[in-house]
Amino acid sequence: SGLVLVKNPHLDLMEEDVLYHLDLGTKTHNLPAMFGDIKFVCVGGSPNRMRAFAQFMRRELGLPGEDVADICAGSDRYAMYRAGPVLSISHGMGIPSISIMLHELIKLLHHAKCRDVTIIRIGTSGGLGIEAGSVVITDTAVDSSFQPRFEQVVLGDVVVRSTELDKDLAEELLACSRDIPDFPTLIGHTMCTYDFYEGQGRLDGALCSFSSEKKLEYLRRAYEAGVRNIEMESTAFAALCGLCGLKGKSCPFHLL
Amino acid sequence: SGLVLVKNPHLDLMEEDVLYHLDLGTKTHNLPAMFGDIKFVCVGGSPNRMRAFAQFMRRELGLPGEDVADICAGSDRYAMYRAGPVLSISHGMGIPSISIMLHELIKLLHHAKCRDVTIIRIGTSGGLGIEAGSVVITDTAVDSSFQPRFEQVVLGDVVVRSTELDKDLAEELLACSRDIPDFPTLIGHTMCTYDFYEGQGRLDGALCSFSSEKKLEYLRRAYEAGVRNIEMESTAFAALCGLCGLKGKSCPFHLL
Repeated sequence: SGLVLVKNPHLDLMEEDVLYHLDLGTKTHNLPAMFGDIKFVCVGGSPNRMRAFAQFMRRELGLPGEDVADICAGSDRYAMYRAGPVLSISHGMGIPSISIMLHELIKLLHHAKCRDVTIIRIGTSGGLGIEAGSVVITDTAVDSSFQPRFEQVVLGDVVVRSTELDKDLAEELLACSRDIPDFPTLIGHTMCTYDFYEGQGRLDGALCSFSSEKKLEYLRRAYEAGVRNIEMESTAFAALCGLCGLKGKSCPFHLL
Repeated sequence: SGLVLVKNPHLDLMEEDVLYHLDLGTKTHNLPAMFGDIKFVCVGGSPNRMRAFAQFMRRELGLPGEDVADICAGSDRYAMYRAGPVLSISHGMGIPSISIMLHELIKLLHHAKCRDVTIIRIGTSGGLGIEAGSVVITDTAVDSSFQPRFEQVVLGDVVVRSTELDKDLAEELLACSRDIPDFPTLIGHTMCTYDFYEGQGRLDGALCSFSSEKKLEYLRRAYEAGVRNIEMESTAFAALCGLCGLKGKSCPFHLL
């Protein structure tokens, strides 16, 4: 049916669903009227960038006015803007932060009865062995051991989830890039870590116990496993979207 | 000596240290002049709340003017305000987000040659079996298996770190609370999870595979292990601050 799925039998029994971190709710807002026509959701870390992206989309779509209002202005956890059928939302940094946003976004799209939604994560990331400025379109998100999995703790137990992303959409996005001159784009694995400094082999954190050689050896192994860029949200993004019926149409791509 | 330690031999070899996510740096800013007299650092998730906290501190300390400027205004990752010797900084939600901020904050305090700094995390959290509105002062941060440990991935390998916090400071803060009427305060363990919905047993996420009974059983086990509140940053906070010489004086407390 193209609808966004929630996999939670408790939701049907609730009189009201408060999307707390988005400052929205089923009783306080008419979600189908506000969001029912959304077809694309773009998410990224920084609120300012997601505002700039919404302004850019308004220009591209020929929509009048460049000013966009923050739909989540009552909360300073996330920022949300729209440009026609495109929703642009910030998610902060790291898996826990994007997970809270995605739980509430998925429920929002479900309550709004949106159909055939494509969700794309855009953002900066560290590139591996590729030209500076390249765009990596993720086929599979992998963890810090280069495995295509997301480990979710549920009531203290680890549940392993798949992190594959839609291959057709990856090819579609790659084809788009070919129409734009000087836009180096490739398809590859994206590695997702829980930490920016020690987790990604940076030598300039407050703590660093490894040598430059050990760092390069780790990054070389990542490259050999197919990793082309590193960031901090892709495994949770792939797992959550996949489980909620956004899989068929979802793909994050990452600006280097 | 009371100085803040960095444990990274590479830092001494760097000509410049850019604290990228704070929009500060050793060449662009005179960090000792800006921050050398800081004695207290308070951190919390939301930028608006940390601004309100800085304004509150200005009033409490009798400092002229209530307007506080965001020292990190050039970055929308974190917000930073000061009130005399008190620095108030937001860290976003979750371990990855607070870790980036703490790496850069610790280097900031080190470069600024600050001495005898006390760092306190304040914020909302879910309480377990305690009166609504209580303040929990954390003695030990525990993970979702109720263990006092933080697992940090370094170049793909797991390193286990201690999450104990300073007991003297906990007692000192508890003594302060006794001077304030109607301010229920207790010392207990704080559980830190990577997820707000499935990880903390919430029944209202986009995904939920467990029953209300299973949720209550898990929370009961947590209570029996000494957990009095649940949030998403304390283990990383305790581990990082402890390793960098902020341990002797550090303690997060959590508003319920």
